[in-house]
Amino acid sequence: MRSAFLFAMAPLLMGAVPAAADDLLARARDAFQPVPAQTQAAQGHEAALVRLGKTLFFDPRLSGSGALSCNACHNLGLAGSDLHPTSLDDTWTSTPRNAPTVLNAGLNGALYWDGRAADLTAQAAAALLSPGEMNGTRERVEATLRSLLGYRVMFRQAFPAAAEPATLDNAAAALAAFQATLTTPDSRFDRYLRGDTAALDGRERDGLALFMDKGCAGCHGGVNLGGSTYYPFGVVEKPAPALLPPADRGREAVTADPTDAYFFRTAPLRNVALTAPYFHSGAVASLGEAVSVMAATQLGTTLSADEVQALTAFLGTLSGTMPAVDVPRLPAPAAPPADG
Amino acid sequence: MRSAFLFAMAPLLMGAVPAAADDLLARARDAFQPVPAQTQAAQGHEAALVRLGKTLFFDPRLSGSGALSCNACHNLGLAGSDLHPTSLDDTWTSTPRNAPTVLNAGLNGALYWDGRAADLTAQAAAALLSPGEMNGTRERVEATLRSLLGYRVMFRQAFPAAAEPATLDNAAAALAAFQATLTTPDSRFDRYLRGDTAALDGRERDGLALFMDKGCAGCHGGVNLGGSTYYPFGVVEKPAPALLPPADRGREAVTADPTDAYFFRTAPLRNVALTAPYFHSGAVASLGEAVSVMAATQLGTTLSADEVQALTAFLGTLSGTMPAVDVPRLPAPAAPPADG
Repeated sequence: MRSAFLFAMAPLLMGAVPAAADDLLARARDAFQPVPAQTQAAQGHEAALVRLGKTLFFDPRLSGSGALSCNACHNLGLAGSDLHPTSLDDTWTSTPRNAPTVLNAGLNGALYWDGRAADLTAQAAAALLSPGEMNGTRERVEATLRSLLGYRVMFRQAFPAAAEPATLDNAAAALAAFQATLTTPDSRFDRYLRGDTAALDGRERDGLALFMDKGCAGCHGGVNLGGSTYYPFGVVEKPAPALLPPADRGREAVTADPTDAYFFRTAPLRNVALTAPYFHSGAVASLGEAVSVMAATQLGTTLSADEVQALTAFLGTLSGTMPAVDVPRLPAPAAPPADG
Repeated sequence: MRSAFLFAMAPLLMGAVPAAADDLLARARDAFQPVPAQTQAAQGHEAALVRLGKTLFFDPRLSGSGALSCNACHNLGLAGSDLHPTSLDDTWTSTPRNAPTVLNAGLNGALYWDGRAADLTAQAAAALLSPGEMNGTRERVEATLRSLLGYRVMFRQAFPAAAEPATLDNAAAALAAFQATLTTPDSRFDRYLRGDTAALDGRERDGLALFMDKGCAGCHGGVNLGGSTYYPFGVVEKPAPALLPPADRGREAVTADPTDAYFFRTAPLRNVALTAPYFHSGAVASLGEAVSVMAATQLGTTLSADEVQALTAFLGTLSGTMPAVDVPRLPAPAAPPADG
């Protein structure tokens, strides 16, 4: 009897939450999933492939200028982005859109703001070759990789069966494998989803409830709270031109379908408090303002200041544990010939 | 008797080297010293100061563009340099001179190619503020640092007695403290200097002997094999204009003394095999060619191909153990106000 009584009391002794809060957890579990410690893609790759990808990620020699690495715009010290409204590309010209974070990018169903890359590998290859990103060419990238003994060894280890392993496509695959390891598990929200309801305070739980009640979660669901679907920026109300520059018609450029005009990928919200400024235009610096804009343009709702604060507090709980990355030693040029 | 005999034989039993090689070691010990595991400057600083300096070193927000960190030109994955003849500055314009490595920079007596900074701290401050380097202003750098809660905490920890710790000068001091930790001990040459004569093979020992016999060590001596003295580029024979651009008159610009025209700092040679291209102009890609040029211009000597190869082999033994550095998490912008 005594032990049964204690068993029944256990939830209370452990700091149980009221039934309403339990309902909130149940609803949240229907809408969202925690970030796994390591993504499926990363588990399927060899360590040599990930190590190669990390080295490539930090190597500025892959760019046209030889001075811009992936890490320049997707800075792993800055939550995988660069805090700029739009980035500076390899010719130091502003890119048209805000750099999305690479953190948890392997958990997105869509890559780029317009979904023009099918997966992380296609995204990496596109970024290397785009004149408005790293400005490389297939020939130059491959010549660079093959000129460096260190890379020849690393590509051989990562692609042991290939006749010529040091190719742009294999570089992209390695970059994808590395990026797939860049997950940020154990956010307070994820601890909440796993049953530690005290991981969110009351204000944050209010924000979570609003996030579902107002309709945010209808698009921003799943593991990444977004990142896999497309919607018009302006479902209900067209945003100001500063936020939605008329010349950038979004997904229409990918599908050539005018009904896709101004469709963009639903932004994934993991670590969103760390990756200002916001939207594809990077035009909004404050997360609170971004929340208000979304409510107005996507949901036709005007939020109170209190609601915005609660929602922003909830979004702050989506910041997870940053991956630990050491600065890789990049392959040195071959010992120069003693040609004096 | 027996033990005395064994004692006398011990050097032979342990693989002793001929007397000539012992002479070589003795001469080398007169001319050079090994890199200490940690420099004196680093020992004198608190861990908080070094940690702050590392964070600042990787933070692009210190630059005018907000996109260029110290690590861009002094890439710790590329032996502390960038492999470019000259670097791209904060406005993506070529700098006039080759970026010297930060590795072992705390062991140099002179900073910059013309010695215009008295020490690492002065160098860091100058690089932050120079329009042709990071292009910052004191006001903007300090405003940036003070706007970030993470930096306010880190500066307070590093400078507990300061009324306002987040200053440009303190940032420079922290950068200097971090850079002073970036030593590369335990090169094969240092193991040789410590008595492990087998750490260099015969070819490399030949190169070492030539390095002293030909006169290279007269300027390239000490711990860093250079880095502390000034000589004209062209003591004996003027280099070609491509190597010595006439408009860059070197140390004369610092001292305003015409007799310093075309004087430059003796390049420190630690890790020189990893930091091509060479000279202040970065105009020579091959270490062998750089050796030949030095012999001709500084010593009036024409080296044989065999001598160049031996010298280059010796220089390859100056590559030490790279410091292990993890990518620091840079302070996030303050949580934006919920101002919706």
